[in-house]
Amino acid sequence: MPAPAVSATPPDAQLGEFELIRKFFTRAPVRAALGVGDDCALLGQRAGTQLAISSDMLVEGRHFFPNVDPRALGHKALAVNLSDLAACGAQPLAFTLALALPQARAAWLEPFSQGLLALADLHGCELIGGDTTAGPLNICITVLGEVPTGQALLRSGAQVGDDIYVSGTLGDAYLALQVRLGHLTLPEPVFAAARQRMEQPTARVALGLALRGVASACADISDGLLGDLGHILERSGVGACIHTGAAQELLAARGLYGDNHAAFEAQIGSARALQCVLSGGDDYELVFTAAPAQRAAVQVAGHSCAVAATRIGQIEATPGVRLLDANGTQVPNHYTSFDHFAA
Amino acid sequence: MPAPAVSATPPDAQLGEFELIRKFFTRAPVRAALGVGDDCALLGQRAGTQLAISSDMLVEGRHFFPNVDPRALGHKALAVNLSDLAACGAQPLAFTLALALPQARAAWLEPFSQGLLALADLHGCELIGGDTTAGPLNICITVLGEVPTGQALLRSGAQVGDDIYVSGTLGDAYLALQVRLGHLTLPEPVFAAARQRMEQPTARVALGLALRGVASACADISDGLLGDLGHILERSGVGACIHTGAAQELLAARGLYGDNHAAFEAQIGSARALQCVLSGGDDYELVFTAAPAQRAAVQVAGHSCAVAATRIGQIEATPGVRLLDANGTQVPNHYTSFDHFAA
Repeated sequence: MPAPAVSATPPDAQLGEFELIRKFFTRAPVRAALGVGDDCALLGQRAGTQLAISSDMLVEGRHFFPNVDPRALGHKALAVNLSDLAACGAQPLAFTLALALPQARAAWLEPFSQGLLALADLHGCELIGGDTTAGPLNICITVLGEVPTGQALLRSGAQVGDDIYVSGTLGDAYLALQVRLGHLTLPEPVFAAARQRMEQPTARVALGLALRGVASACADISDGLLGDLGHILERSGVGACIHTGAAQELLAARGLYGDNHAAFEAQIGSARALQCVLSGGDDYELVFTAAPAQRAAVQVAGHSCAVAATRIGQIEATPGVRLLDANGTQVPNHYTSFDHFAA
Repeated sequence: MPAPAVSATPPDAQLGEFELIRKFFTRAPVRAALGVGDDCALLGQRAGTQLAISSDMLVEGRHFFPNVDPRALGHKALAVNLSDLAACGAQPLAFTLALALPQARAAWLEPFSQGLLALADLHGCELIGGDTTAGPLNICITVLGEVPTGQALLRSGAQVGDDIYVSGTLGDAYLALQVRLGHLTLPEPVFAAARQRMEQPTARVALGLALRGVASACADISDGLLGDLGHILERSGVGACIHTGAAQELLAARGLYGDNHAAFEAQIGSARALQCVLSGGDDYELVFTAAPAQRAAVQVAGHSCAVAATRIGQIEATPGVRLLDANGTQVPNHYTSFDHFAA
């Protein structure tokens, strides 16, 4: 697919509404019957499939720092939406972008659109329409995906006895946030890796597809592991136990310390690692459940997309979440997840 | 369909993110396979149809006044999206709502959700998902509709010789805006009627459906007649002449003066009426073209939905728009349409 046209506009020039759409956000339709430029986009529908739809809104000062790199922001705005498709096992098709901007400056719009469209191209997910307006910076993307009818991964399918898994590594986005908020100081390489997770998350689209027919329930981790696992438990009418020893190993930053446990404990510490993993949001990994008979299949799914799938607990009949230490002893659960109106 | 549950929450209580979704925005799916509450909504796809998709973002202080009635705002936020489906001749199916709110207060959310869902029910358009976050007030709706493959009304179909029509009445939303901005004073009944147009527009969904196979091109009038007609002309590679005498009669406020032309001229005036009709946005009527052979069919379509269709001009080969007075003499075109980054 063609790269976005390189702008000849001076980087600080103010653009008009239709000029900015034409310059940065209009490309020829690929699968869509009609893309940007009419009242609606048109997309063919395929029999035997269901459309998966999700919307996410990102607000400056709440979901990202005001001075964030616009290229990273373009990436993240789409990634958080693709992550919802991943959680359903849906194949990305297309998206709309609604954008409120204080000023329409090419110096911001060009890298933003490049970060956004590079990720879109990677997933074959077309930009088919949207809206632009002046206003406090706000990015709202609605993403459309496709899944064979009845095969979507839902939050409601967890069964008592199922294993609980997390993809990839977890908690590093929150670790970076702690540094950015001045609550913690870390060596530059550790912070840089964590910051990458916070600013340019990877949506687990391929893993979501590979887990169709394998996982019994799935959600993406946007608000924190316990919060998002909680949605699975609530919708499935079950409870869970989580092994904290396995969970705290999920923090990628721990691996950067190698065998230097003393430095890890001094700079981050196991308690904080566990808190980042259990409560930290913004990682966009998947938390999913699968029957014990599917253990080999889960590992095959992970290998096929080069993503680890770590078993961290089991589904139980008793509601609520119980945290167990390495000895199997229950430890207090005082962790909370993110609430946009309580934070 | 059931009305939204009446809230027992004190009107000024601050709600949590999931509580507010559950209380005001969660209803049982009707046609959707899965609605609010999972990572994605799921919607069955029907062979032989195309999905029409549009997103609109409304920002406080730009698209509506800060003190607007939240019930009217809920209505308008969906109406402007349904209007895009109307312009394509698509049948509304479902929508997502992304909402940034400074505070999650039941006193605001309850009437907002009632205004929104009452209009949704009127059109059988299900709320299937979305997002809520704290932030400067911003409402982003993505609407999904359905149209038989190849039958969508497009902006690109206008032919030289086609008639140009406008549905209903036009310019009154802009007239009300002039009053609200203090540029004009009007008698209360005249302002009240115009304000209703500004705050609670009617999307011409039934007319859009009735125009399938009749109109050659169609757009909704959100940014002003000349601007939105301009999109049709640009996409169709044609020009137009507009009869200003027919156009200025489209202002509904004129009718409120009956035969009292002197009062109309003193309080509004023909020049301002024409400006409201040609440049004023926010009316959400349809501007469409149709071959002269379709004149009877256009009137039948209008009658079938109790909406007037007024012929105001013709499509011509020469690019640009020519304004003609009652004598057929060309008058200067100094009118502009709305640009969100220039206004």
